[in-house]
Amino acid sequence: MRISELSEATGVSIATLKYYLREGLVPPGRQTAPNQADYGDEHVHRVRLVRVLREVGDLPVEAIREVVTAIEDPERSRHAVVGTAHRALDREVDDGPSAEREEVDAWLDEELRWHVGPDAPGRDQLALALASLRRLGREVGPEAFARYARVAAELATEEVASVTDAGSAAAAVEAAVVGTVVYESVLVALRRLAQEHVSATN
Amino acid sequence: MRISELSEATGVSIATLKYYLREGLVPPGRQTAPNQADYGDEHVHRVRLVRVLREVGDLPVEAIREVVTAIEDPERSRHAVVGTAHRALDREVDDGPSAEREEVDAWLDEELRWHVGPDAPGRDQLALALASLRRLGREVGPEAFARYARVAAELATEEVASVTDAGSAAAAVEAAVVGTVVYESVLVALRRLAQEHVSATN
Repeated sequence: MRISELSEATGVSIATLKYYLREGLVPPGRQTAPNQADYGDEHVHRVRLVRVLREVGDLPVEAIREVVTAIEDPERSRHAVVGTAHRALDREVDDGPSAEREEVDAWLDEELRWHVGPDAPGRDQLALALASLRRLGREVGPEAFARYARVAAELATEEVASVTDAGSAAAAVEAAVVGTVVYESVLVALRRLAQEHVSATN
Repeated sequence: MRISELSEATGVSIATLKYYLREGLVPPGRQTAPNQADYGDEHVHRVRLVRVLREVGDLPVEAIREVVTAIEDPERSRHAVVGTAHRALDREVDDGPSAEREEVDAWLDEELRWHVGPDAPGRDQLALALASLRRLGREVGPEAFARYARVAAELATEEVASVTDAGSAAAAVEAAVVGTVVYESVLVALRRLAQEHVSATN
Protein backbone atom coordinates (compact mmCIF):
# COMPACT_ATOMS: atom_id res chain seq x y z
CA MET A 1 0.00 0.00 0.00
CA ARG A 2 1.02 3.61 -0.44
CA ILE A 3 1.78 5.99 2.41
CA SER A 4 -1.68 7.54 2.05
CA GLU A 5 -3.24 4.11 2.57
CA LEU A 6 -0.96 3.41 5.51
CA SER A 7 -2.20 6.67 6.97
CA GLU A 8 -5.81 5.62 6.48
CA ALA A 9 -5.25 2.16 7.94
CA THR A 10 -3.61 3.50 11.11
CA GLY A 11 -5.29 6.85 11.66
CA VAL A 12 -1.85 8.49 11.77
CA SER A 13 -1.29 11.54 9.53
CA ILE A 14 1.12 11.35 6.60
CA ALA A 15 3.31 14.04 8.19
CA THR A 16 3.60 11.96 11.37
CA LEU A 17 4.32 8.79 9.36
CA LYS A 18 7.14 10.59 7.58
CA TYR A 19 8.49 11.63 10.96
CA TYR A 20 8.36 8.02 12.23
CA LEU A 21 10.20 6.87 9.08
CA ARG A 22 12.82 9.60 9.37
CA GLU A 23 13.44 8.75 13.02
CA GLY A 24 13.77 5.04 12.25
CA LEU A 25 10.77 4.06 14.38
CA VAL A 26 9.14 2.43 11.35
CA PRO A 27 11.24 0.54 8.75
CA PRO A 28 11.34 1.98 5.22
CA GLY A 29 8.90 0.64 2.65
CA ARG A 30 9.95 -1.17 -0.53
CA GLN A 31 11.00 1.50 -3.06
CA THR A 32 8.78 1.28 -6.17
CA ALA A 33 9.68 4.60 -7.79
CA PRO A 34 12.14 7.40 -6.92
CA ASN A 35 9.51 9.08 -4.79
CA GLN A 36 7.22 6.21 -3.90
CA ALA A 37 7.36 3.22 -1.57
CA ASP A 38 5.18 0.25 -0.84
CA TYR A 39 4.14 -0.65 2.70
CA GLY A 40 2.74 -3.88 4.11
CA ASP A 41 0.90 -5.25 7.12
CA GLU A 42 4.08 -5.22 9.20
CA HIS A 43 4.16 -1.44 8.74
CA VAL A 44 0.57 -1.10 9.87
CA HIS A 45 1.38 -3.08 12.97
CA ARG A 46 4.53 -1.13 13.75
CA VAL A 47 2.84 2.25 13.32
CA ARG A 48 0.14 1.19 15.76
CA LEU A 49 2.72 0.08 18.31
CA VAL A 50 4.61 3.36 18.03
CA ARG A 51 1.38 5.29 18.41
CA VAL A 52 0.49 3.44 21.61
CA LEU A 53 3.95 4.06 23.05
CA ARG A 54 3.63 7.77 22.25
CA GLU A 55 0.03 8.27 23.33
CA VAL A 56 -0.33 6.02 26.34
CA GLY A 57 3.26 5.67 27.48
CA ASP A 58 4.28 9.22 26.64
CA LEU A 59 7.68 7.75 25.74
CA PRO A 60 10.43 9.89 24.19
CA VAL A 61 11.50 9.02 20.64
CA GLU A 62 14.85 7.58 21.82
CA ALA A 63 13.11 5.07 24.09
CA ILE A 64 10.84 3.97 21.25
CA ARG A 65 13.84 3.60 18.98
CA GLU A 66 15.49 1.29 21.52
CA VAL A 67 12.37 -0.83 21.72
CA VAL A 68 12.08 -1.25 17.94
CA THR A 69 15.81 -1.89 17.60
CA ALA A 70 15.42 -4.72 20.11
CA ILE A 71 12.49 -6.11 18.12
CA GLU A 72 14.44 -6.04 14.86
CA ASP A 73 17.69 -7.60 16.09
CA PRO A 74 17.64 -11.31 15.16
CA GLU A 75 20.87 -11.98 17.10
CA ARG A 76 19.46 -11.30 20.51
CA SER A 77 17.94 -14.00 22.65
CA ARG A 78 14.32 -13.56 23.50
CA HIS A 79 15.09 -13.00 27.17
CA ALA A 80 17.63 -10.28 26.25
CA VAL A 81 15.11 -8.68 23.93
CA VAL A 82 12.47 -8.44 26.63
CA GLY A 83 15.10 -7.10 29.06
CA THR A 84 16.15 -4.39 26.61
CA ALA A 85 12.58 -3.39 26.01
CA HIS A 86 11.92 -3.15 29.74
CA ARG A 87 15.00 -1.05 30.31
CA ALA A 88 14.06 1.30 27.47
CA LEU A 89 10.74 1.93 29.15
CA ASP A 90 12.30 2.87 32.47
CA ARG A 91 11.91 6.46 33.47
CA GLU A 92 14.79 8.73 34.18
CA VAL A 93 15.18 8.75 37.93
CA ASP A 94 17.65 10.78 39.95
CA ASP A 95 19.87 8.93 42.37
CA GLY A 96 17.90 8.21 45.53
CA PRO A 97 19.23 9.42 48.88
CA SER A 98 21.95 6.97 49.91
CA ALA A 99 20.80 6.10 53.45
CA GLU A 100 17.33 5.20 52.21
CA ARG A 101 18.76 3.46 49.18
CA GLU A 102 20.67 1.07 51.45
CA GLU A 103 17.54 0.28 53.43
CA VAL A 104 15.56 -0.31 50.23
CA ASP A 105 18.30 -2.58 48.86
CA ALA A 106 18.40 -4.64 52.05
CA TRP A 107 14.63 -4.97 52.04
CA LEU A 108 14.38 -5.98 48.36
CA ASP A 109 17.37 -8.32 48.34
CA GLU A 110 17.29 -9.89 51.79
CA GLU A 111 13.71 -9.69 52.93
CA LEU A 112 11.69 -10.00 49.71
CA ARG A 113 14.56 -11.87 48.00
CA TRP A 114 13.59 -10.41 44.64
CA HIS A 115 15.93 -10.94 41.70
CA VAL A 116 16.39 -7.44 40.34
CA GLY A 117 19.48 -5.78 38.89
CA PRO A 118 21.54 -3.57 41.22
CA ASP A 119 20.99 -0.62 38.87
CA ALA A 120 17.22 -0.99 38.39
CA PRO A 121 15.79 2.56 38.56
CA GLY A 122 12.94 1.33 40.78
CA ARG A 123 15.43 1.10 43.65
CA ASP A 124 16.13 4.84 43.55
CA GLN A 125 12.46 5.60 43.07
CA LEU A 126 11.62 3.70 46.27
CA ALA A 127 14.47 5.39 48.16
CA LEU A 128 13.17 8.80 47.11
CA ALA A 129 9.64 7.88 48.19
CA LEU A 130 10.90 6.69 51.57
CA ALA A 131 12.95 9.88 52.12
CA SER A 132 9.91 11.96 51.15
CA LEU A 133 7.64 10.26 53.65
CA ARG A 134 10.20 10.83 56.39
CA ARG A 135 10.64 14.45 55.41
CA LEU A 136 6.90 14.84 55.96
CA GLY A 137 7.26 13.44 59.46
CA ARG A 138 6.17 9.85 58.84
CA GLU A 139 8.36 7.40 60.67
CA VAL A 140 8.31 4.57 58.20
CA GLY A 141 10.69 1.97 56.86
CA PRO A 142 10.56 0.02 53.61
CA GLU A 143 8.17 -2.45 55.32
CA ALA A 144 5.52 0.24 54.78
CA PHE A 145 5.67 -0.79 51.11
CA ALA A 146 5.02 -4.49 51.78
CA ARG A 147 1.36 -4.35 50.79
CA TYR A 148 2.25 -2.76 47.46
CA ALA A 149 5.00 -5.32 46.87
CA ARG A 150 2.54 -8.17 47.39
CA VAL A 151 0.06 -6.65 44.94
CA ALA A 152 2.82 -5.90 42.40
CA ALA A 153 4.15 -9.46 42.54
CA GLU A 154 0.65 -10.86 42.10
CA LEU A 155 -0.01 -8.72 39.00
CA ALA A 156 3.46 -9.36 37.56
CA THR A 157 3.04 -13.12 37.73
CA GLU A 158 0.03 -12.99 35.44
CA GLU A 159 1.54 -10.29 33.23
CA VAL A 160 4.79 -12.14 32.64
CA ALA A 161 2.89 -15.33 31.78
CA SER A 162 1.22 -13.48 28.90
CA VAL A 163 4.65 -12.42 27.61
CA THR A 164 5.96 -15.98 27.80
CA ASP A 165 2.95 -17.21 25.86
CA ALA A 166 3.67 -14.86 22.95
CA GLY A 167 5.01 -16.58 19.81
CA SER A 168 7.95 -14.71 18.26
CA ALA A 169 10.54 -12.49 19.94
CA ALA A 170 8.85 -9.48 18.35
CA ALA A 171 5.51 -10.57 19.78
CA ALA A 172 7.14 -11.08 23.20
CA VAL A 173 8.60 -7.58 23.17
CA GLU A 174 5.29 -6.14 22.14
CA ALA A 175 3.52 -8.05 24.90
CA ALA A 176 6.08 -6.84 27.47
CA VAL A 177 5.74 -3.26 26.31
CA VAL A 178 1.98 -3.36 26.30
CA GLY A 179 1.94 -5.04 29.69
CA THR A 180 4.21 -2.43 31.18
CA VAL A 181 2.96 0.74 29.53
CA VAL A 182 -0.73 0.20 28.87
CA TYR A 183 -1.54 -1.69 32.05
CA GLU A 184 0.48 0.74 34.15
CA SER A 185 -1.81 3.46 32.87
CA VAL A 186 -4.84 1.25 33.63
CA LEU A 187 -3.64 0.59 37.17
CA VAL A 188 -2.88 4.24 37.92
CA ALA A 189 -6.26 5.36 36.54
CA LEU A 190 -8.18 2.74 38.47
CA ARG A 191 -6.35 3.50 41.70
CA ARG A 192 -7.42 7.16 41.50
CA LEU A 193 -10.97 6.22 40.60
CA ALA A 194 -11.04 3.74 43.47
CA GLN A 195 -9.87 6.42 45.90
CA GLU A 196 -12.68 8.69 44.76
CA HIS A 197 -15.17 5.86 45.03
CA VAL A 198 -14.08 4.81 48.51
CA SER A 199 -14.00 8.46 49.71
CA ALA A 200 -17.54 8.98 48.44
CA THR A 201 -18.96 5.91 50.12
CA ASN A 202 -17.26 6.31 53.51
CA MET B 1 13.83 31.78 61.85
CA ARG B 2 15.38 33.59 58.90
CA ILE B 3 15.20 32.40 55.32
CA SER B 4 18.75 31.02 55.59
CA GLU B 5 17.66 28.87 58.54
CA LEU B 6 14.53 27.78 56.68
CA SER B 7 16.83 26.72 53.87
CA GLU B 8 19.00 24.70 56.26
CA ALA B 9 16.01 23.09 57.96
CA THR B 10 14.49 21.93 54.67
CA GLY B 11 17.48 21.34 52.42
CA VAL B 12 15.93 23.67 49.84
CA SER B 13 18.14 26.45 48.46
CA ILE B 14 17.34 30.09 49.24
CA ALA B 15 16.79 30.80 45.53
CA THR B 16 14.20 28.02 45.36
CA LEU B 17 12.53 29.21 48.60
CA LYS B 18 12.20 32.70 47.09
CA TYR B 19 10.64 31.13 44.02
CA TYR B 20 8.13 29.19 46.17
CA LEU B 21 7.25 32.43 48.04
CA ARG B 22 6.88 34.40 44.82
CA GLU B 23 4.61 31.73 43.34
CA GLY B 24 2.46 31.61 46.47
CA LEU B 25 3.28 27.97 47.23
CA VAL B 26 4.58 28.96 50.67
CA PRO B 27 2.88 31.73 52.70
CA PRO B 28 4.93 34.87 53.41
CA GLY B 29 6.81 35.10 56.70
CA ARG B 30 6.13 37.72 59.34
CA GLN B 31 7.86 40.94 58.23
CA THR B 32 10.46 41.98 60.84
CA ALA B 33 12.36 44.58 58.79
CA PRO B 34 11.92 45.99 55.28
CA ASN B 35 14.06 43.24 53.83
CA GLN B 36 13.69 40.49 56.41
CA ALA B 37 10.98 38.07 57.48
CA ASP B 38 10.52 35.50 60.19
CA TYR B 39 9.47 31.93 59.41
CA GLY B 40 8.04 29.26 61.69
CA ASP B 41 7.49 25.51 61.83
CA GLU B 42 4.49 25.76 59.55
CA HIS B 43 6.80 27.11 56.86
CA VAL B 44 9.20 24.21 57.32
CA HIS B 45 6.34 21.81 56.94
CA ARG B 46 4.93 23.53 53.85
CA VAL B 47 8.30 23.70 52.11
CA ARG B 48 8.75 19.97 52.65
CA LEU B 49 5.31 19.25 51.22
CA VAL B 50 5.98 21.38 48.13
CA ARG B 51 9.31 19.66 47.64
CA VAL B 52 7.70 16.21 47.72
CA LEU B 53 5.06 17.29 45.23
CA ARG B 54 7.76 18.62 42.92
CA GLU B 55 10.28 15.79 43.28
CA VAL B 56 8.12 12.71 43.59
CA GLY B 57 4.93 13.87 41.95
CA ASP B 58 6.58 15.98 39.27
CA LEU B 59 3.57 18.30 39.60
CA PRO B 60 3.43 21.63 37.75
CA VAL B 61 3.41 24.79 39.86
CA GLU B 62 -0.27 25.48 39.13
CA ALA B 63 -1.31 22.09 40.52
CA ILE B 64 0.70 22.69 43.68
CA ARG B 65 -0.88 26.11 44.04
CA GLU B 66 -4.34 24.56 43.90
CA VAL B 67 -3.41 22.05 46.58
CA VAL B 68 -2.08 24.70 48.97
CA THR B 69 -5.05 26.99 48.28
CA ALA B 70 -7.32 24.14 49.30
CA ILE B 71 -5.32 23.61 52.48
CA GLU B 72 -5.51 27.29 53.41
CA ASP B 73 -9.22 27.86 52.77
CA PRO B 74 -11.06 27.68 56.12
CA GLU B 75 -14.48 27.88 54.43
CA ARG B 76 -14.26 24.57 52.66
CA SER B 77 -15.51 21.39 54.20
CA ARG B 78 -12.93 18.76 54.76
CA HIS B 79 -14.48 16.50 52.15
CA ALA B 80 -14.39 19.35 49.61
CA VAL B 81 -10.78 20.06 50.49
CA VAL B 82 -9.72 16.49 49.89
CA GLY B 83 -11.71 16.47 46.63
CA THR B 84 -9.98 19.63 45.42
CA ALA B 85 -6.59 18.24 46.28
CA HIS B 86 -7.33 15.05 44.39
CA ARG B 87 -8.54 16.93 41.34
CA ALA B 88 -5.45 19.15 41.36
CA LEU B 89 -3.28 16.04 41.22
CA ASP B 90 -5.08 14.63 38.21
CA ARG B 91 -3.04 14.51 35.05
CA GLU B 92 -4.05 16.23 31.90
CA VAL B 93 -5.69 13.58 29.78
CA ASP B 94 -7.03 13.99 26.27
CA ASP B 95 -10.59 12.97 25.63
CA GLY B 96 -10.76 9.21 25.26
CA PRO B 97 -12.23 7.71 22.08
CA SER B 98 -15.99 7.91 22.45
CA ALA B 99 -16.98 4.30 21.69
CA GLU B 100 -14.54 2.97 24.27
CA ARG B 101 -15.49 5.72 26.68
CA GLU B 102 -19.11 4.51 26.65
CA GLU B 103 -18.03 0.96 27.36
CA VAL B 104 -15.79 2.10 30.20
CA ASP B 105 -18.59 4.22 31.67
CA ALA B 106 -21.03 1.32 31.56
CA TRP B 107 -18.50 -0.98 33.19
CA LEU B 108 -17.58 1.47 35.99
CA ASP B 109 -21.09 2.68 36.71
CA GLU B 110 -23.22 -0.41 36.15
CA GLU B 111 -20.93 -3.36 36.69
CA LEU B 112 -18.48 -2.15 39.36
CA ARG B 113 -21.02 0.38 40.64
CA TRP B 114 -18.24 2.77 41.60
CA HIS B 115 -19.18 6.29 42.72
CA VAL B 116 -16.96 8.47 40.55
CA GLY B 117 -17.69 11.83 38.91
CA PRO B 118 -18.73 11.77 35.24
CA ASP B 119 -15.73 13.99 34.41
CA ALA B 120 -13.07 12.03 36.31
CA PRO B 121 -10.01 11.91 34.00
CA GLY B 122 -9.49 8.23 34.83
CA ARG B 123 -12.46 7.43 32.60
CA ASP B 124 -10.73 8.85 29.52
CA GLN B 125 -7.47 7.24 30.51
CA LEU B 126 -9.13 3.82 30.60
CA ALA B 127 -10.90 4.45 27.29
CA LEU B 128 -7.56 5.32 25.67
CA ALA B 129 -5.94 2.19 27.10
CA LEU B 130 -8.80 0.05 25.79
CA ALA B 131 -8.60 1.60 22.31
CA SER B 132 -4.82 1.08 22.31
CA LEU B 133 -5.11 -2.60 23.14
CA ARG B 134 -7.62 -3.06 20.34
CA ARG B 135 -5.46 -1.18 17.89
CA LEU B 136 -2.72 -3.71 18.65
CA GLY B 137 -5.09 -6.52 17.80
CA ARG B 138 -6.17 -7.57 21.27
CA GLU B 139 -9.86 -8.30 21.42
CA VAL B 140 -10.59 -7.10 24.91
CA GLY B 141 -13.36 -5.31 26.74
CA PRO B 142 -13.22 -3.36 29.99
CA GLU B 143 -13.57 -6.68 31.86
CA ALA B 144 -9.86 -7.18 31.04
CA PHE B 145 -9.25 -4.51 33.70
CA ALA B 146 -11.19 -6.33 36.44
CA ARG B 147 -8.10 -7.70 38.17
CA TYR B 148 -6.60 -4.21 38.37
CA ALA B 149 -9.86 -2.76 39.66
CA ARG B 150 -9.95 -5.31 42.47
CA VAL B 151 -6.38 -4.50 43.50
CA ALA B 152 -7.00 -0.73 43.24
CA ALA B 153 -10.11 -0.94 45.42
CA GLU B 154 -8.25 -3.00 48.00
CA LEU B 155 -5.40 -0.48 48.23
CA ALA B 156 -7.75 2.52 48.21
CA THR B 157 -9.72 1.23 51.16
CA GLU B 158 -6.64 1.27 53.36
CA GLU B 159 -5.33 4.51 51.88
CA VAL B 160 -8.57 6.42 52.43
CA ALA B 161 -8.74 5.19 56.03
CA SER B 162 -5.40 6.89 56.71
CA VAL B 163 -6.81 10.15 55.31
CA THR B 164 -9.91 9.89 57.49
CA ASP B 165 -7.76 9.34 60.56
CA ALA B 166 -5.82 12.58 59.99
CA GLY B 167 -6.63 15.38 62.47
CA SER B 168 -7.10 18.75 60.75
CA ALA B 169 -8.29 19.50 57.22
CA ALA B 170 -4.73 20.47 56.32
CA ALA B 171 -3.47 17.15 57.64
CA ALA B 172 -6.19 15.34 55.69
CA VAL B 173 -5.19 17.07 52.46
CA GLU B 174 -1.58 16.26 53.09
CA ALA B 175 -2.43 12.62 53.76
CA ALA B 176 -4.49 12.45 50.56
CA VAL B 177 -1.71 14.02 48.53
CA VAL B 178 0.95 11.78 49.99
CA GLY B 179 -1.26 8.74 49.52
CA THR B 180 -1.90 9.58 45.90
CA VAL B 181 1.46 10.89 44.78
CA VAL B 182 4.05 9.10 46.89
CA TYR B 183 2.37 5.71 46.99
CA GLU B 184 1.58 5.86 43.29
CA SER B 185 5.30 6.18 42.69
CA VAL B 186 5.91 3.27 45.10
CA LEU B 187 3.36 1.08 43.32
CA VAL B 188 4.69 1.85 39.83
CA ALA B 189 8.30 1.20 40.93
CA LEU B 190 7.44 -2.07 42.65
CA ARG B 191 5.40 -3.29 39.70
CA ARG B 192 8.37 -2.87 37.37
CA LEU B 193 10.74 -4.50 39.86
CA ALA B 194 8.28 -7.37 40.29
CA GLN B 195 8.13 -7.88 36.52
CA GLU B 196 11.91 -8.09 36.39
CA HIS B 197 11.94 -10.47 39.35
CA VAL B 198 9.27 -12.76 37.92
CA SER B 199 10.91 -12.75 34.46
CA ALA B 200 14.25 -13.73 36.00
CA THR B 201 12.84 -16.61 38.01
CA ASN B 202 10.60 -18.09 35.33
